[in-house]
Amino acid sequence: MPLGQLILASGEASSDMRYAAGFSTPDEFIWFSAGSLRGVVMSALEYDRARCSAASGVQVFSEEEWGGPDRLTMLGNIAAKYELAGFSVPGDFPLRWADRLRNAGLVVKAEEGPFFPEREVKSEEEAEKITRSLRQAEAGCRRAFAVLRETEIARDKTLLWRGEPLTSEILRFEIDSTMMKAGMLATGTICAGGEQGSRPHDQGSGVLRADSPIVMDIFPRSAATGYWGDLTRTVVRGVPSDIVKKAYDAVLDARETAKKKLAAGVIPSAVHDEAVRVLERYGFHTGRGEKGDYGFFHGLGHGVGLDIHEAPRLSRRCDDPLKPGAVVTVEPGLYYPEWGGIRLEDMVYIDPAGAPRCLTRIEDFLVL
Amino acid sequence: MPLGQLILASGEASSDMRYAAGFSTPDEFIWFSAGSLRGVVMSALEYDRARCSAASGVQVFSEEEWGGPDRLTMLGNIAAKYELAGFSVPGDFPLRWADRLRNAGLVVKAEEGPFFPEREVKSEEEAEKITRSLRQAEAGCRRAFAVLRETEIARDKTLLWRGEPLTSEILRFEIDSTMMKAGMLATGTICAGGEQGSRPHDQGSGVLRADSPIVMDIFPRSAATGYWGDLTRTVVRGVPSDIVKKAYDAVLDARETAKKKLAAGVIPSAVHDEAVRVLERYGFHTGRGEKGDYGFFHGLGHGVGLDIHEAPRLSRRCDDPLKPGAVVTVEPGLYYPEWGGIRLEDMVYIDPAGAPRCLTRIEDFLVL
Repeated sequence: MPLGQLILASGEASSDMRYAAGFSTPDEFIWFSAGSLRGVVMSALEYDRARCSAASGVQVFSEEEWGGPDRLTMLGNIAAKYELAGFSVPGDFPLRWADRLRNAGLVVKAEEGPFFPEREVKSEEEAEKITRSLRQAEAGCRRAFAVLRETEIARDKTLLWRGEPLTSEILRFEIDSTMMKAGMLATGTICAGGEQGSRPHDQGSGVLRADSPIVMDIFPRSAATGYWGDLTRTVVRGVPSDIVKKAYDAVLDARETAKKKLAAGVIPSAVHDEAVRVLERYGFHTGRGEKGDYGFFHGLGHGVGLDIHEAPRLSRRCDDPLKPGAVVTVEPGLYYPEWGGIRLEDMVYIDPAGAPRCLTRIEDFLVL
Repeated sequence: MPLGQLILASGEASSDMRYAAGFSTPDEFIWFSAGSLRGVVMSALEYDRARCSAASGVQVFSEEEWGGPDRLTMLGNIAAKYELAGFSVPGDFPLRWADRLRNAGLVVKAEEGPFFPEREVKSEEEAEKITRSLRQAEAGCRRAFAVLRETEIARDKTLLWRGEPLTSEILRFEIDSTMMKAGMLATGTICAGGEQGSRPHDQGSGVLRADSPIVMDIFPRSAATGYWGDLTRTVVRGVPSDIVKKAYDAVLDARETAKKKLAAGVIPSAVHDEAVRVLERYGFHTGRGEKGDYGFFHGLGHGVGLDIHEAPRLSRRCDDPLKPGAVVTVEPGLYYPEWGGIRLEDMVYIDPAGAPRCLTRIEDFLVL
């Protein structure tokens, strides 16, 4: 007997579910396939929404139709009706339910790779959705530029905006609220100044200062489409030090050099290594010191779609050739606890013909 | 050989992880316990953050210390070092990793119930964190009241604010941005007017109108603490119909009656049933018609903590007596496609001595 496919998740927690069902919910539900049939099984609370917004070709069932609400009963009935030995499931399928189904005599097989490999290959329509989210990231970033340009510099180098010290929190709010007005969700925007910017995942907090780089990594998700945009710019209000200027030039050169290498068939690790070589030509090396890591110690980029981080990865360890339809970030960075961080991030679409298309449309500069 | 405990998740995706580790990350990492030892294993990118913010008693390891970054190697080394037969894991543990560990000869046992049953029992300190998030929900709600009071009513009953039609989207932005300024995350705020309010999960969209109920369900999460607040109020700008006034009185009576029943030892389903009886006394019955469900067709309330929906549930099906330390919502509602919805939600803490304490501090009224 063949296997069907099964996802058990909320659309909010699982992008595979959102991709398969075509809509998102806060609560878990069942998506399954059996041969060419695709279906979702909805509680009364979500049934009407599902009918309105399910992806084309997805049949919407009520729990009653499968003997619900008991989930084991429903899944057993689905397997029996379509004569399935069990289900192939995503790697993050909940173990509790896998064991319950196995105890009930069904096969449950976790996919080793991605559940929907086709998610890596974006259609022009998907690239357009990503681009629309990226445009909102750019709008948020321009708002930050405007706020920073309005700041005055106090004698102790504190940035003052509208008479008050400008903090990471205030700058983040200005970026996020700009994007939210356009229907975006923003939960992790980074505005990290000075030494905080030397930790790539530090969101930033407290007062921002002149003459020191401010890393702004902006990645909103469209509430309507679920697709993300991703953008990073680093700026200095005031006068950057020579080392910061040199690091900026190096990172910009690394990004542009890497972008030019991208095309279908290219090996991601080769592009990553090329960016490393550019940074090293400027004299920036990577290592671990007393204060932690320094240099360039993360991957060059990652795929973006319904997940903010998805395949393909542009990293040292990834040797699968890039496919037409990939959307990736290119985001080299340099991080030194002594002066902070520089990261510059664009997005590139490898179009269906295999040619690279830069999706990002915002200027590059260090000083404002 | 004994079992250890294991979580493999990001703090963002798993509240068990956030509870156990004491901090949150966008990327997956390992938390484990072995006897009285508790540890996390961090990549270079997250190591410093973890050192700064791990919960007391949690030891921070680097991946190198366990032979990483290969995860199977690290987990095998942990099991060997502490002489563990394997691990007990949460029910949502990823099947892919469970099968890999089992294939490597380790026991992996999914907990049938909650992984940390103690999460249901909130300390005064946790109740205080929840209350602080609730205060921000109240601030957002007061902002909505203020906006609605400023509206004018056009001849076609459209609400006009600052000269433009007031939409669900604009009202939501006013609520969310008020909360965001205070460091809250808000991603699902409901502002549903008229017929949209008759679908409890409808977020609301488009123009809001006078004389018709507007359901506002506001549930922000503190970015800093991870704890949620949850609040619902329903108001009418203009003149409500008699049936809406009666439904409002019924729901308010049901909520207050249910709140008075709450205490340690009380059976949740009995409280739910009591709320149903109050609504029925007002003549509001529940059923399914041509246009979908009507009446009161969801649970009376749910626990709130690091998850917005967690144990205990106040529903028809829950017969475990309430424990001291529970934090629950009490949110009866009435929903009729003909005129919309009314939902009124407060939060109650069953304190360590077993007595109920209403956490919500915002007025109740229908008309503004």
